[in-house]
Amino acid sequence: MTANSSSPVVGIVMGSRSDWETMQHAAQKLDALGVPYEVKVVSAHRTPDVLFSYADQAAARGLRAIIAGAGGAAHLPGMLAAKTAVPVLGVPVQSKALNGMDSLLSIVQMPAGIPVATFAIGNAGAANAALFSAALLAVEYPAIGAALAGFRAKQTDDVMASDDPRQ
Amino acid sequence: MTANSSSPVVGIVMGSRSDWETMQHAAQKLDALGVPYEVKVVSAHRTPDVLFSYADQAAARGLRAIIAGAGGAAHLPGMLAAKTAVPVLGVPVQSKALNGMDSLLSIVQMPAGIPVATFAIGNAGAANAALFSAALLAVEYPAIGAALAGFRAKQTDDVMASDDPRQ
Amino acid sequence: MTANSSSPVVGIVMGSRSDWETMQHAAQKLDALGVPYEVKVVSAHRTPDVLFSYADQAAARGLRAIIAGAGGAAHLPGMLAAKTAVPVLGVPVQSKALNGMDSLLSIVQMPAGIPVATFAIGNAGAANAALFSAALLAVEYPAIGAALAGFRAKQTDDVMASDDPRQ
Amino acid sequence: MTANSSSPVVGIVMGSRSDWETMQHAAQKLDALGVPYEVKVVSAHRTPDVLFSYADQAAARGLRAIIAGAGGAAHLPGMLAAKTAVPVLGVPVQSKALNGMDSLLSIVQMPAGIPVATFAIGNAGAANAALFSAALLAVEYPAIGAALAGFRAKQTDDVMASDDPRQ
Amino acid sequence: MTANSSSPVVGIVMGSRSDWETMQHAAQKLDALGVPYEVKVVSAHRTPDVLFSYADQAAARGLRAIIAGAGGAAHLPGMLAAKTAVPVLGVPVQSKALNGMDSLLSIVQMPAGIPVATFAIGNAGAANAALFSAALLAVEYPAIGAALAGFRAKQTDDVMASDDPRQ
Amino acid sequence: MTANSSSPVVGIVMGSRSDWETMQHAAQKLDALGVPYEVKVVSAHRTPDVLFSYADQAAARGLRAIIAGAGGAAHLPGMLAAKTAVPVLGVPVQSKALNGMDSLLSIVQMPAGIPVATFAIGNAGAANAALFSAALLAVEYPAIGAALAGFRAKQTDDVMASDDPRQ
Amino acid sequence: MTANSSSPVVGIVMGSRSDWETMQHAAQKLDALGVPYEVKVVSAHRTPDVLFSYADQAAARGLRAIIAGAGGAAHLPGMLAAKTAVPVLGVPVQSKALNGMDSLLSIVQMPAGIPVATFAIGNAGAANAALFSAALLAVEYPAIGAALAGFRAKQTDDVMASDDPRQ
Amino acid sequence: MTANSSSPVVGIVMGSRSDWETMQHAAQKLDALGVPYEVKVVSAHRTPDVLFSYADQAAARGLRAIIAGAGGAAHLPGMLAAKTAVPVLGVPVQSKALNGMDSLLSIVQMPAGIPVATFAIGNAGAANAALFSAALLAVEYPAIGAALAGFRAKQTDDVMASDDPRQ
Repeated sequence: MTANSSSPVVGIVMGSRSDWETMQHAAQKLDALGVPYEVKVVSAHRTPDVLFSYADQAAARGLRAIIAGAGGAAHLPGMLAAKTAVPVLGVPVQSKALNGMDSLLSIVQMPAGIPVATFAIGNAGAANAALFSAALLAVEYPAIGAALAGFRAKQTDDVMASDDPRQ
Repeated sequence: MTANSSSPVVGIVMGSRSDWETMQHAAQKLDALGVPYEVKVVSAHRTPDVLFSYADQAAARGLRAIIAGAGGAAHLPGMLAAKTAVPVLGVPVQSKALNGMDSLLSIVQMPAGIPVATFAIGNAGAANAALFSAALLAVEYPAIGAALAGFRAKQTDDVMASDDPRQ
Repeated sequence: MTANSSSPVVGIVMGSRSDWETMQHAAQKLDALGVPYEVKVVSAHRTPDVLFSYADQAAARGLRAIIAGAGGAAHLPGMLAAKTAVPVLGVPVQSKALNGMDSLLSIVQMPAGIPVATFAIGNAGAANAALFSAALLAVEYPAIGAALAGFRAKQTDDVMASDDPRQ
Repeated sequence: MTANSSSPVVGIVMGSRSDWETMQHAAQKLDALGVPYEVKVVSAHRTPDVLFSYADQAAARGLRAIIAGAGGAAHLPGMLAAKTAVPVLGVPVQSKALNGMDSLLSIVQMPAGIPVATFAIGNAGAANAALFSAALLAVEYPAIGAALAGFRAKQTDDVMASDDPRQ
Repeated sequence: MTANSSSPVVGIVMGSRSDWETMQHAAQKLDALGVPYEVKVVSAHRTPDVLFSYADQAAARGLRAIIAGAGGAAHLPGMLAAKTAVPVLGVPVQSKALNGMDSLLSIVQMPAGIPVATFAIGNAGAANAALFSAALLAVEYPAIGAALAGFRAKQTDDVMASDDPRQ
Repeated sequence: MTANSSSPVVGIVMGSRSDWETMQHAAQKLDALGVPYEVKVVSAHRTPDVLFSYADQAAARGLRAIIAGAGGAAHLPGMLAAKTAVPVLGVPVQSKALNGMDSLLSIVQMPAGIPVATFAIGNAGAANAALFSAALLAVEYPAIGAALAGFRAKQTDDVMASDDPRQ
Repeated sequence: MTANSSSPVVGIVMGSRSDWETMQHAAQKLDALGVPYEVKVVSAHRTPDVLFSYADQAAARGLRAIIAGAGGAAHLPGMLAAKTAVPVLGVPVQSKALNGMDSLLSIVQMPAGIPVATFAIGNAGAANAALFSAALLAVEYPAIGAALAGFRAKQTDDVMASDDPRQ
Repeated sequence: MTANSSSPVVGIVMGSRSDWETMQHAAQKLDALGVPYEVKVVSAHRTPDVLFSYADQAAARGLRAIIAGAGGAAHLPGMLAAKTAVPVLGVPVQSKALNGMDSLLSIVQMPAGIPVATFAIGNAGAANAALFSAALLAVEYPAIGAALAGFRAKQTDDVMASDDPRQ
């Protein structure tokens, strides 16, 4: 398998269909970096058995990282991490009433023993989880590392090329 | 089975041994009301399979309510509720850094579809979850209803009997 | 009386007419599950005597649970619970300035002795309070239990049947 | 009746005996200003009927203001205000987990129609509620107004007399 | 002077013209209750000398209460209270970024010695400050007390007359 | 160089082009006061080397103050301050999810040793950072001090001239 | 006057004697840098006239900066800034109930027009306000600039000299 | 190099010596798992150049992950991430006034483009960052993966072996 093959190495999961508006920013970054991924709705609360089987099979199915987005009492990332040794990257989706502060605390405040790598609330967090997964894959897949380096260089150049905000 | 038998009708579970300091207040109230219960550490993150089997068997084992205490990214109550139709009463344990605000939001902000009845942060919440479970049992077990009525009458009397705080 | 009769077993009360936008989500769930209920505006602050008489008569009138929604300094659920042994399920209505954080804390932080089972801020909380009341009723009314089981199975199936958020 | 008589014109009430540690600061200020007052534990949740009768009789008993302290889901001030036209001054008692933020929001965020005049969390709030009640009484009782003016002049002088914090 | 005369007994002041959107709710309530009042923009930060002279003259000009609304770092109510013995009622105006939490804390957290009676964030707080000022005036002006009693009775009747939110 | 020359004495920098909507309020105030300034996008995270060279050269290039705006995990002001002795004035830009509370804490909570002068979240903070920079420059550039005095006198007059918010 | 003379160029003021525990960290830094300063308790609420006269005379008395510390509803820095063109540096003192969050918001959230440069809550903020005042003075007093440069170089060296935290 | 060699593959850095009390929990976990690491104080604000050179050389020196702990305005993790493609794991150290909420937001709310994987506030976060780094290394170093699997199995067994908190 290469980084450009169709066999996914990253799983993007989310608690409900409405989270896709946020999580598509992870998918877009993985597309741009040539990282094969899959996308699936897995609800910790409505489909707990799917969550467990997804986590149980993640390593054997070749996933190197799972990006999990959820809002409110966001249990999906932590429960995935409880069931698999594959690194789990948590994305707090912005919630209606509390603006994602509930999502953030539900994901980041994991007790010692089971880590979830947490990123910013909302679109930025989704994009950054994807970039972080690419960094993890860079050791094994040099092409991804090169694509990531290119992305970072370009974003630096972009800022420098238009650094007058009045124009 | 009667309410005074030894077969538990309420399960008190908690995410770690250290939560007992809080959750013992639930046990004390159940003791006082003659509600048979069991106590067990079940960690959503360290023993997820135990959590699932506990929830799967709860109804068949005769549990009428589960009181679940957890702190920080508190996933235990919500995941139990995802796996059983037995009512789950969540108790946010006061956490070290954020004083239980993380525990509270992780428990109470459940999405539509899977409810967790949430009580106050800390000891008061544990005691109240027990009192609430007794109220649920009162329909089926009149003796528990009577004990609860007695408890409530007494706490009213106690306030009235010593309502001068200077003495 | 059966669960399908017209005599209400659940009371949905709320502090003002504007809370109906939130609390209708409780009514819709009870409708779907065949739980007879009543709906009434009861303001803790503008009609305190109505609140007291409502609570005083709740048990005798056959109510098995009261779902109480309120926003801001939300005193309705707690004061009902102070006056009746019928389980009170509190729904924090999302407030204008503080997004329901005030409503949530005013409802959930009850002192030891008088519990209010609290659910999420807003629509999800209203729906979940209804589902929770159905779970309480399931022991006495098997038809409600069956309807609830059906609802839960269906929501699981719904997620699994459309788990690709891109479609 | 004069301001120096023993018939109380201010009622200091609180939700539990433990609130006295805070509310004594109100009593001390009233003592210093020669305002007759009474002190009583009235629990909104454990003695709701006492709350209602206290409020119902407040005006007839000659109370000109009620200072009400409570913590957590602090319903006492708002429910008193719902039942009497006597001005209610609310004091948020510092709570264990949330440091009184729950108490503050439960008291201050009253809906339009029933006001509670709210003061700072803890001792300062208790003292200030007392000073504020004295200001209300000053129109009717010039001696209280004079005592209050004296207190304020003295506290100004005290700051000016020792304004070097290193000494 | 009677309560119906045009000489104001309540001053409504606010930190900026834009606060009028909130503070008009105070004016409307005073209009409805027949309380003579005046309205003025007084900025603690842009016109501190006006603030001081307004406070200095308040008692002599016959003001019995000052309703002061401000947002953000809301210093107007506290500084007025520092300069006059006339009761100051503070209204936290909802701010853009922090939704009035900054306004609330800046007003309510006064140190012991100088009280500001604080009301809810936004329109409800403005209305309630006006109602509270009417309660203060009721001792001296029975007509205001009667109007307030009428207002309260009517709002109770209004809730009871339309207590079905579905209609 | 005089204050009216074109050589900038204040640098306005910001973490992204979108911050200009906020930071233009700083520029407008400097324009009004006749303070020469420059504007530039400098991203702490995307162009860290530009940040360092900007800070390294600031003093030599004649900058007397740097106004730095950033949102979210806002590192720009603090890192500039770490690299230059030129006073850094931080402006927390209002962020999407957390309304700028994250920006504010990221900027203001600097450890002892490296100060950042922090202003309010959003437009007011940007304007005030500009006014504060003018105050700093007033010692060296009397014309700026005079312009600032004129601005302040005018804003006082403006409030006084239209202090009836109903007109 | 030189920076080493005894005529103060910085005023350290604070709302109460108890704030000295925090504000002494400002004094210590000014001592170390050779900046002449004065220290005084000025209470916005208990001695408002002192506040105004202090601010009125600050420029004429030679003060180049005022460091103002206050806690809770912290109005001292903002009211000083309203009355003087001398730069005001605000230090939020850590409050008992709300840990200084109230102090911070009361100081930093100033409306456009009157800036207060705000620093971190507590000791770090006091120290940094002093360092910032030294940076302001460096243009006029090269000796202070040199002392500040020395301080900064030393703190860098100190970290580098003992960068193994296990030793 | 093998995972058992002395050449470090993980760098533990922290903003000040006092952070070691927290960050030692990362070191302990790496010791237990046989992960070679180094420990160093790197202050974003006091030694920014050390920060940059550390980040610049991290990849070439063989580091596969950097665990960065910091408190308050915690800029260390984000600035490291800005300067290296090596994955940065951020640990919010519990701060004095705001209990680490400032540290958390300063680390986790990174803008899109530069990710920092964030863990819980305090000791649990430090331990989990170490466990997460081990998971990253498991692909390249099977011995670390095996040690991690052993650690996880043991912590599961430990909970199950003593799941009665009363004993």
